[in-house]
Amino acid sequence: MTGIIDVALRAGVAKSTASRALSGNGYVSAETRERVERAARELAYSAHSSASSLATGRTSTIGVIMPMADRWYFAELLSGIQRALVDDGLDLGLYGATEGSAERARMLDHALAGRRFDGIIAVCLQPGAHELERLTETGLPLVSVGPFSERADTVTIDDVAASRVATEHLIDLGHEDIAFLGDEPDADRFSFGERKRLDGYCQAMISAGLDRRIRPVTTRSTIPEAFETSAALLADKRHRPTAIAAVCDEAAIGAILAAQRLGIPVPGELSVTGIDDHRYAEMFALTTIRQSPKEQGAEAVRLLRARMQDPQAPLGHVVAPVSLVARASTAVPRSDAR
Amino acid sequence: MTGIIDVALRAGVAKSTASRALSGNGYVSAETRERVERAARELAYSAHSSASSLATGRTSTIGVIMPMADRWYFAELLSGIQRALVDDGLDLGLYGATEGSAERARMLDHALAGRRFDGIIAVCLQPGAHELERLTETGLPLVSVGPFSERADTVTIDDVAASRVATEHLIDLGHEDIAFLGDEPDADRFSFGERKRLDGYCQAMISAGLDRRIRPVTTRSTIPEAFETSAALLADKRHRPTAIAAVCDEAAIGAILAAQRLGIPVPGELSVTGIDDHRYAEMFALTTIRQSPKEQGAEAVRLLRARMQDPQAPLGHVVAPVSLVARASTAVPRSDAR
Repeated sequence: MTGIIDVALRAGVAKSTASRALSGNGYVSAETRERVERAARELAYSAHSSASSLATGRTSTIGVIMPMADRWYFAELLSGIQRALVDDGLDLGLYGATEGSAERARMLDHALAGRRFDGIIAVCLQPGAHELERLTETGLPLVSVGPFSERADTVTIDDVAASRVATEHLIDLGHEDIAFLGDEPDADRFSFGERKRLDGYCQAMISAGLDRRIRPVTTRSTIPEAFETSAALLADKRHRPTAIAAVCDEAAIGAILAAQRLGIPVPGELSVTGIDDHRYAEMFALTTIRQSPKEQGAEAVRLLRARMQDPQAPLGHVVAPVSLVARASTAVPRSDAR
Repeated sequence: MTGIIDVALRAGVAKSTASRALSGNGYVSAETRERVERAARELAYSAHSSASSLATGRTSTIGVIMPMADRWYFAELLSGIQRALVDDGLDLGLYGATEGSAERARMLDHALAGRRFDGIIAVCLQPGAHELERLTETGLPLVSVGPFSERADTVTIDDVAASRVATEHLIDLGHEDIAFLGDEPDADRFSFGERKRLDGYCQAMISAGLDRRIRPVTTRSTIPEAFETSAALLADKRHRPTAIAAVCDEAAIGAILAAQRLGIPVPGELSVTGIDDHRYAEMFALTTIRQSPKEQGAEAVRLLRARMQDPQAPLGHVVAPVSLVARASTAVPRSDAR
């Protein structure tokens, strides 16, 4: 079996240098690291990761705890995390759970039982379920993506502002009957800021003197469920809003599909906004607030690496950028529709 | 720090029994295992996984190599794998890659460098890229989900039959102008049986004497890309097919959305079939061939566990079940449309 000494000989460096280069602990130049890595590849050298881990106390694995939901945001975020970890030579241990607190508690127990990683990225855990607190108690480096925490590094967007800007866009166009389509917060589910997005909508409505028109419509924010809810909302012409500010793009797309089904022209008789800039947004000409979960994932890895290097550094709270993308799902309301 | 002896005392078993129960190596009854696990939880006992791994030669981690694509199939499959692994007390190391061979080679190098897992589940690797061969050379237990391999355990559906049945359904309704909407095989991408599905369509057309009507239309099989391709296909009324057999539900949904955009009634003037039973299928009343990636994920874990226990057992090739789900996207063609 090839040993580290063979790798060192082939790369023309000392054994200790080869060891540093492959373990990632201690300084070696980029050029040396590359030479050692090439030698290791050529010799098909596989460090016994357990032995190396026992020696360093490190696993080189990052645990990612996130919903196992078929949602654009999670897939993009995971992809961003994954790529950043590979760039850093780290592995990704995935701990997913469906909704429901019993199942999630079991997943957390399992994830934490063996201390098989050097740090944790927790995605969209519901603050009300106190799962983040439990994670901070482990003392492991921790970054929360989505929910803000006073006790961990965080990557968030300004959910209140994102939703306020979308609602203000509708108000600026002249809409007054604007419904907010979104989730009711629930500790059994995952959180992506739905409560703050409702707040942002309310703030915009109140600032415009439209507080009596505030109209939250509760739905699960998947395309099929938002489709059902919107079909019921839009069916009654007398009480139909002229605009829908949706909690996310998937909810917004459900609303557009329901309008299509009912023969209601968008944006002619109904304007719709989302939040995300989902990969389907362009197809539906959706006006939305753009965020980049891929970049948020890379940012989470950067924060975690910094925390692993300096556990005592002040907490980092990154607010990821968002921007309004105006497409053709929003327009001035028709005068006869008001 | 709590030791294994404390766990054994609390559970009322011998230290060696506690060790067997927590390591998963060697026999203990289900009842004993549960008692030991409860004791370990109550004492917040964390086996140093690296030490335990060094002693047993096992990592208790399964490497999953799969596309990091925002697709229903992958999300469902990953969720099925994850749940089965948690049930077995195993961890999931995720190695994802986007399309493009350089990026994928880099990901494979990284995944295989440290031997950080006891087995591999490889999902939808493109057979033409010979990545499965590379994985079998590691000698690690390996299950391929999607592509069939002569050298590994596999979980597949019968892609040829699935596509043939969908096409025959359209032929039975009276359609003759049936286009096949799907991907062109490409080693830089991932494979989900697109070539076999094209074969199944061709077989059905040939059996019905419709070989001159065979009409493959090439598209990437995401909703937005299939939407664009279908809009171009359907725009010219003279050459419009009366039916589309799509390679998967996402392609089929893209086709339905394009028909809606062009004012072409489905199924009045266009019938559409998919393969998947995607979670959006019901919303689009899509006639499709149902498969369950969640169950395929659980099946892959079962095969891998069996392989880890008996490396010499004959290869297992599981063909997962599929079934036709007839909804309202297919109907008899209108006589004036023929």
